Amino acid sequence: MDEPTLDVVTVGHAVVDVLAHVDDALVAAHGLAKGTMTLVDLERSAVVYDSMPPGIEVSGGSAANTAAGIASLGGTAAFIGKIRDDFLGEIFLHDLRSTGVVYTTPASTSGPPTARCLILVTPDAERTMNTYLGTAGELDADDVDPALVAGARITYVEGYLVGLPSAEDALAVAVEAAHDAGRRVALTLSDPSWVALQRDAFTALLPSVDILLGNEAEAREITGESDPEAALRGLTKTCPVVAITRGAAGAGASDGNETISVPAEPVTDLEDTTGAGDLFAAGFLLGLAREKPLEACLRLGALAAAEVISHIGARPQTSLAALASDKGLEI
Amino acid sequence: MDEPTLDVVTVGHAVVDVLAHVDDALVAAHGLAKGTMTLVDLERSAVVYDSMPPGIEVSGGSAANTAAGIASLGGTAAFIGKIRDDFLGEIFLHDLRSTGVVYTTPASTSGPPTARCLILVTPDAERTMNTYLGTAGELDADDVDPALVAGARITYVEGYLVGLPSAEDALAVAVEAAHDAGRRVALTLSDPSWVALQRDAFTALLPSVDILLGNEAEAREITGESDPEAALRGLTKTCPVVAITRGAAGAGASDGNETISVPAEPVTDLEDTTGAGDLFAAGFLLGLAREKPLEACLRLGALAAAEVISHIGARPQTSLAALASDKGLEI
Repeated sequence: MDEPTLDVVTVGHAVVDVLAHVDDALVAAHGLAKGTMTLVDLERSAVVYDSMPPGIEVSGGSAANTAAGIASLGGTAAFIGKIRDDFLGEIFLHDLRSTGVVYTTPASTSGPPTARCLILVTPDAERTMNTYLGTAGELDADDVDPALVAGARITYVEGYLVGLPSAEDALAVAVEAAHDAGRRVALTLSDPSWVALQRDAFTALLPSVDILLGNEAEAREITGESDPEAALRGLTKTCPVVAITRGAAGAGASDGNETISVPAEPVTDLEDTTGAGDLFAAGFLLGLAREKPLEACLRLGALAAAEVISHIGARPQTSLAALASDKGLEI
Repeated sequence: MDEPTLDVVTVGHAVVDVLAHVDDALVAAHGLAKGTMTLVDLERSAVVYDSMPPGIEVSGGSAANTAAGIASLGGTAAFIGKIRDDFLGEIFLHDLRSTGVVYTTPASTSGPPTARCLILVTPDAERTMNTYLGTAGELDADDVDPALVAGARITYVEGYLVGLPSAEDALAVAVEAAHDAGRRVALTLSDPSWVALQRDAFTALLPSVDILLGNEAEAREITGESDPEAALRGLTKTCPVVAITRGAAGAGASDGNETISVPAEPVTDLEDTTGAGDLFAAGFLLGLAREKPLEACLRLGALAAAEVISHIGARPQTSLAALASDKGLEI
């Protein structure tokens, strides 16, 4: 077996975010559950957009954010996900490649436009997302390069793909290519309402998952356990490594041998929690890929998450490698 | 003559900005003069974009920024400028209308795409712009609604239109409609290198201009005077009201009766000077439209400029009306 050439390859939706600060009333007026993601069609997307104040556009997408975070930490990452050959796709491609992430999934030349996610950021810095999937929802098995997957220590799949009929084959190819090469597969639960909606598909996938990530609400949803410690113990029966984030209360992880918790990194200017979980995943997975102790993996995750919630947008705006070095965290 | 229904109508390029923080070396590598605007074709735009780190996209365009600033100050404004019916155009339209600005110029359904401006922001917060004009460069006489212009106390034209053969007829219609209705025409010099390039067109237009705005470098370029006070005196021989901004040194204005200077508003977090002149114009012109004393007009301009340079992007991110009220400045 060849030596891996990448730390992590991530698989997910290629999305450009449209973010605006709004009040709680707007989220309620659209009947949205704060803190969750809702899939919307173009028409519904237009209705929500019309109600939003001026926004900013920045590249996003959960798994792509994680890949960008790994690159910013000094790791090597690739991303697999689908754009259209339109201006939004051009922005996504530019922003990801210019971070150093390997991104070679061919752009569609026909069909729906590049995905966009309308993100309502409320005064509590919580984000509520409305995703029009567009071309991102057409990722298929041909888009997954088995050699790319086989060359990465960890293949990380975003939970938003789980249960989408269109993504089923792509996921199967990725999981098989990783395991055939003796690599590990990681999954994030992504969103509590998505877990509830796609419970069967998640349950079917979990036995193939070597590293599971999620937040408290997602862990509660998949296990039925309201206590995060109990949820963590329950999940480690299926997945060898499990990490659960708890927002301002920090994060915990178990690898069967030890169970460890770390506090959240202090944040003075909490502005927008978009990307918090994605960037935690970046630090945690890079730590695992580099065979760091579990506590160091958690601390890298906490550090990356703290940077991204201190500004609007879900990608790092400063070198995470420099921040890690300042904290004495070696990559 | 009917009472005016709007404070200001602004005419200019409809542009979405792509902003990224870069180092001085990148600006130099492209042979760009820091602090200026260069028109580029699509090919050249792609070359510059490829060299840029991840960016953010926000609506811009000099005159459109001014209209958004006037709306944020609590004034009434309209904008005339051309977009394509593409996603970038949709962003521009949304972001402007959601501020309350009247924007009715029909979008092109064919031809080049919506304009984009690649903005390199250096560590000194200075911005260097590369504009691909696209559809914005096709504004013509039919796009200018004489009734809209006649209904505004002031018609404000961005200097980037001056000397463009395509915009000549549109400018002539706007100036004539304003003066026929007994309204005032305002012009910004926009950019020192543009003034140098289009000197004859600017010189021909100045006798029709009732209110002239510019920064020191632009005033020096058009008058040949290196002393801002002398440039101000020289320009008031042609234009009844003249204001010259001097960056951190504040701004001065003359209306023939009095010549006044105000200091710059203190800014603790200077991040990106993009839009400083546009937002100064917003405050200054709204003050004139509401017949405020010259000093109050200058102070409103300084206040609006200070807000926009404290963050990335050229549109206000907080209510300028509230900021003005905090400072005891009545609109």
